Formats: sequence, structure tokens, C-alpha cells
Amino acid sequence: MPVNYQTPAASQLKPVRGVRLGIAEAGIRKLDRKDLLLIELAAGSRAAGVFTRNLFCAAPVQVCQRHLGGPESPGEIRALVVNTGIANAGTGEPGWLAAQATCAAVARRLSVVPEQVLPFSTGVILEPLPVERIEAGLPACVADLDADNWFDAAHAIMTTDTVAKAASRQIELGGRTITITGIAKGAGMIRPNMATMLGFVATDAAISQAALARMVREAADESFNCVTVDGDTSTNDSFILIATGGAGGSEIGESCPEYALLAESVTDVARELAQAIVRDGEGATKYIRILVEGGDNRAECKAVGYAIAHSPLVKTAFFASDPNLGRILAAIGNAGITDLDVNRIRMWLDDVLVSVDGGRNPAYREQDGARIMQQAEITIRVDLARGDAVASVWTCDLSYDYVKINADYRS
Amino acid sequence: MPVNYQTPAASQLKPVRGVRLGIAEAGIRKLDRKDLLLIELAAGSRAAGVFTRNLFCAAPVQVCQRHLGGPESPGEIRALVVNTGIANAGTGEPGWLAAQATCAAVARRLSVVPEQVLPFSTGVILEPLPVERIEAGLPACVADLDADNWFDAAHAIMTTDTVAKAASRQIELGGRTITITGIAKGAGMIRPNMATMLGFVATDAAISQAALARMVREAADESFNCVTVDGDTSTNDSFILIATGGAGGSEIGESCPEYALLAESVTDVARELAQAIVRDGEGATKYIRILVEGGDNRAECKAVGYAIAHSPLVKTAFFASDPNLGRILAAIGNAGITDLDVNRIRMWLDDVLVSVDGGRNPAYREQDGARIMQQAEITIRVDLARGDAVASVWTCDLSYDYVKINADYRS
Repeated sequence: MPVNYQTPAASQLKPVRGVRLGIAEAGIRKLDRKDLLLIELAAGSRAAGVFTRNLFCAAPVQVCQRHLGGPESPGEIRALVVNTGIANAGTGEPGWLAAQATCAAVARRLSVVPEQVLPFSTGVILEPLPVERIEAGLPACVADLDADNWFDAAHAIMTTDTVAKAASRQIELGGRTITITGIAKGAGMIRPNMATMLGFVATDAAISQAALARMVREAADESFNCVTVDGDTSTNDSFILIATGGAGGSEIGESCPEYALLAESVTDVARELAQAIVRDGEGATKYIRILVEGGDNRAECKAVGYAIAHSPLVKTAFFASDPNLGRILAAIGNAGITDLDVNRIRMWLDDVLVSVDGGRNPAYREQDGARIMQQAEITIRVDLARGDAVASVWTCDLSYDYVKINADYRS
Repeated sequence: MPVNYQTPAASQLKPVRGVRLGIAEAGIRKLDRKDLLLIELAAGSRAAGVFTRNLFCAAPVQVCQRHLGGPESPGEIRALVVNTGIANAGTGEPGWLAAQATCAAVARRLSVVPEQVLPFSTGVILEPLPVERIEAGLPACVADLDADNWFDAAHAIMTTDTVAKAASRQIELGGRTITITGIAKGAGMIRPNMATMLGFVATDAAISQAALARMVREAADESFNCVTVDGDTSTNDSFILIATGGAGGSEIGESCPEYALLAESVTDVARELAQAIVRDGEGATKYIRILVEGGDNRAECKAVGYAIAHSPLVKTAFFASDPNLGRILAAIGNAGITDLDVNRIRMWLDDVLVSVDGGRNPAYREQDGARIMQQAEITIRVDLARGDAVASVWTCDLSYDYVKINADYRS
């Protein structure tokens, strides 16, 4: 069960002009389950993405990067195809060929060129992708294409997610109503048993390629790059921002006044999706915000946030609602900031000041910590007292169910 | 239950000339439990140590480093005092004063100077050390001092360890019989609920301070620095090597022919203790050796080994005996070696070649992987195919009990 999250109603997910979505049951790994999603984009659509930094990145990730930035990049993207069940990672040359064959199959169906198609896979690593099943499923996807299919699409890309994740916004920009709608699946930087996080956000605004590329990086840095469940980076992580221009109007460049407003809304949608992933983190019973302030730079604030978020000690203490908060200090000391003066650090649990001067706050009472630890949502705030930089990391606790889900899933 | 490990019999733990050990129940955190150990060293004894790199290192660690290397370092060490229950970490200035008060109390009892005493603590972080209880317990420790107390001492420093950890060797060196005996407690680089790993090894060989300092670093690098349970580095980790010279003979320097033989035996004892810690890792049901070869340097081999050993995915798959081995590739890709060519990597599970050319070995059959995964001890071998460096990491799986132990321990 996710922590304080539920999927928006289908009616709340506004269609994006120029985007149609179709779903099918292709039987890629299991039968009787929607496991294939086709997203068709109108002519003139653009896309930009950020991808996993895992060196064993999946074949579809490599193909996406080539089609989005490579020499033969068409500039125009006309379709995305997403399968669940098989990650097509750790598959070597055959995997690369399978991802390209998938693009070619979609291109034939939609009468576009294969380089205008972006492939995505999520599932088990080291197993071959059954391209023939994807090909066989495509006609049903095409027949199902509809601008109002965002809700079903959010469900079609689920693996062990317990809820579908989607978000939608509308803003006024230069007298026009701009829609931003997105979906995501996963449970953090890693899908512990499917090894994938996927996020797709589309807008009908017209945006230059350079502005789009910058916007997707900025949005990812403030959303998907702030979440973790267990600290591994998956082989398939992909976050794609699509701009169809369907709303009309002149193209928005990086220097346009509309850029900031649109970027803020895109980031807002991405953040809602990213936080939904943590709230649905495998076995999660608590949603934990970590705010690190007073750093020399954002990078070291992130490092401290992740050191806390990745500590099994901290995560199990939160699962137990046990205010064994020295574990948080130990994690901070383990963050790799060699010149950190631990005697200046302050640490709060919500509004309770737990630690000062490298030790326990004399006024801290264990029952205050115990009270906060009972909550389903908790904020850990750390002041490094050495600068003005700030960063947030969002995570969940580590429970029996995390182990159960990951120990049992293939059996 | 530890994986294939049991404490040696008391008779197998040979006394070290110049070392006497005394145990007491001081009621430091809980009653009716041996929680205080005093190790008395004969005049002329030396010690060297390696300590945690956690910036929140405990007060006793700071005092040890000062007494071993500081300006007022006496060169001669006459006693070690170890308490369980409270880590005296995250305790700021009061913690520092408490550790020094402990040394002073021991010094008074043994008529030595406080700088000749090394203090060690293991237990809960952020809570004050009850020095008065340690002082009150010292007379019982002194009355109990005996050269044959290694077995009891190994039990006295246990916290959530399920077995006491001890090892002993005797070698012939220059016509003399040299004894090396050691004890340790903990479950890896971290004590998940007590935040401490401690290791003490003593020999009656006469060794120069420089040779001793080098020997303890070399031994740690080949033993305690190769193990992990959950990847956090504790605030109190300490490994101490003692040389009493009680065996007589001329002092062994770094350039002496005896150095290598003695260092090998010391490392052998340290490795046995370190591996015992992993075999007794919290909730461990499997003992996993990770051998990484073909690296440019030892550091990158270690990085790959730890990336595998710290992946909750890999650890839960081993707990489940599930040959979901793509998780190992994902961990390798996440090790931070930016120029690694994943298409050259090979990976074995014991003698089964699982992965070649960045993908699955065509000859690999899942039942072969499944057979190996059933074992209580498993070796993962990775060939990076880029150099001659090699490194080993020893770890255990991640089970329900790991979560249970760490979620419940203070309740």
C-alpha cells in the first residue's frame, strides 16, 4: 500500500493535443496482462530525455540516446513504444538488434522512419526480448490509440507498482491553455525486482529543442534525481519530456519569458510522479523527506541526503518507529565529505531539534522523537553550517515486505 | 545462526606472554551481563591500530588515536578497556571527557599513566557513557585478570553477535615459539544495531613500532577492510595489534626476514576473525565470497566487489536462492568505473560461467545457477578484463531477520 498516494481519476488527466496512447496485451512475459504501450505523436513533435548512468544501460536506452542525440537524429519524434516484463538489459548485441527491430516494427505501422521511434523496456535483466510478440501486439495498440488513454497507459506500464502514477496540469501561457500530463512507474532509482523506473511527460506547448533538452534536465534534477528506495541505479531508468506544439503559438526558447513558468509546471508534474514512486516504494510504510541545508554546494547536500536515505540502519529504525537517531549522525559521517566539521552540525526530526554541537541536544527528550517517529510522513532536516546550498532527497523505510518482495518475485 | 562458524574451544586460544584479561558485569546498559573487559599488557608492550573513517568517529576512537600517535604518545601501551552497551559516539565534548576519565580510572588501578591506556566502546550512539559504572566495575576486572581468559573475553565484548569470535596461531620464528591470539565482535563494517566492530590481536613477538604500524594496516586491508554486511561504516570500528615482546628475542623491524612470516600469520588471524563476523552477519543465511579480477588496480576491483556486496537486490536474491543474476551485472554497472567496457566482462557463480560479452553466456542454463544458489557458501567471480589487479570482498545475504533485528533491538 502506498503512503498517502492514490492515482488521479481518468478525468483529471487532461489529454495533450498531438498525443494518442494505445495499450495491448502482448504476453511478453506473462499472459492476460497489459504489457505493451504505444504513444503516437503528431508531426512536428519533439522529445528530450535523461537516462540511467548505469554502465550496463539497457539496449533501448542506447537506442533512445542515439535517436534523440545521435548523428542520424531526425529532430522529430513520432512514437514511443514501452514493454514491461523484459528489461532487454544485459543482452549484448542481440538486445541492441531487438530494440532496433522494435522501432522498425512501429515505424512500419505508423509510416514513419525507425529513427523517429523511441523504445523502452522494463523487466527482468539478462533475458532476451521477444520482439515477435511486440510486433504481434502492435495492431491492437494502434486500434486502441486515443488521446484520453493516459489513465490506462499509467496502468499498462506498472510492474510491481501497487498503484498507477500519473499527474496533469494546465497553465495559461501567452493567452493559450497549455496542458502538461505525465505518467511514471517504478519505486525509486531502482525497481528492485524489475530494474526500471520510467517517466513520460508530454506538453502541447511549442518548445525549441535546446529549451526542451534543458527543461528535461532541470525537471529530472528536481524530481526523479531526488528519490531513492534502495540506492541502486537501474539499467533502464528513462525520463522523457515531449513537446507536440499542438497548442500552437510561437516556439518557446530558453530566453523566452514563458520558459520559467512552463519549466516550473513541468518540474511540478515530474516531482509529483517521482514522489509517488517513493510513496509506493517496495514495502514502504513511511515517506521520509530529507532536507540538507547549509552546504558548500548542492552536490555535498545531496551526498549527505543520500547517505542518510541509503543507510539500512536509518531505514529500519523508521520502519520500527524507533528514535534511534544516532544512526542518522553515523550516516552523515559516512557521506564522504572529508572536511566536514561534525561539531557544528544540527539535526531536526520535523520541528524537534535532536542534535547540536556533534552530540545530543540537551533539551531533546526521547518521547519527542518517539512521537514524530510514529508518523507516516517525516522530515529529517540537517544543517551542515558551512554554506548556503540546499538539497532534498525523498525516500521510504526498509520493511520486511521489501525483503519479501525482492526475495520472492520470480518464484 | 552463523554460517559454518563456531567459536574455538578455550584450550585452542593460546595465551600470549605479557597479556592478561579480566571481565566484569558493570551494568553499563543492562544488568546481569558481562559488559566490561580489561586487557593488561606487560611493561614494554606496544600497540598500533586502524580506526573507522566515519567523521562522527566515537570519542574513544579519538582518544586511542591520540594515545597511539599523538604528541604525548608514550610509545608503551599498558592497558585496553572495552565496554559494551554504549558507543560513546555522537556525544560531543562530554563524550571526549568520559573516554579520558575512563583511561584515568584504569591508570589509577594499574599504576600506569592515562596515556598508556586505550579505551573502546560499543553500543548505542547519542547516549552518554556512564563512567562511574565503569570505574565501579574495574576492581572486579583486575581481580579476574588471567592470561587464559581469551575465551571469556571474546564473549564479554559480544553485543548482538550470536557467537563469540576468536582465533589463535603459533609459529616458529628464529627458534622461538611465537603466539598470535585475537578476538573480535561485530557483523561487518557496520554493527547495524550497535554501530561497532572491534578487533584485538596480540602477539608476544618483539616488533618495532614502525613494523607494527605497517603490519596492522596490511592485516586490516586483507581482513576487516574486505567485509561488509550492509555497507555503512560505523562510528567505532577499531582494530588493534599488540606486541608484548614476551617471547624475547631481538626486535623485528620492517626489513627483517621474520617480518613477512609474522605478518602473514597476523593477517591469517585477522582474516579468520573478519570472516567470522560476516558468517555471523545479522540475519545471514548465506556466506558470499566476491572475487574481482582483471582490474586496472585493486581499488576498482574493491569498488566492484562492494557494489555487488551492497546491492539489496543481489543480497535478497541470494537469500531467496533465486538465480536472478542480471542484478549482479546491474551492480557492476553501478560501481562508478566510468571507462569500464561492460561488453568484455565475464561473471561466474562458483564454476558456472553466467555472463560473457555483456550478456548471458549462451551455454548458461538456469538450473546450473539455481543449483549453486542453493548452497550456504557461494563465490561470485567477476573478470573486468582490463588489467591484472585482484580484490576480494566477503559478505552475506539480506534476510527478513536482518530487518527484524534492526527494527526491534531497542524495544
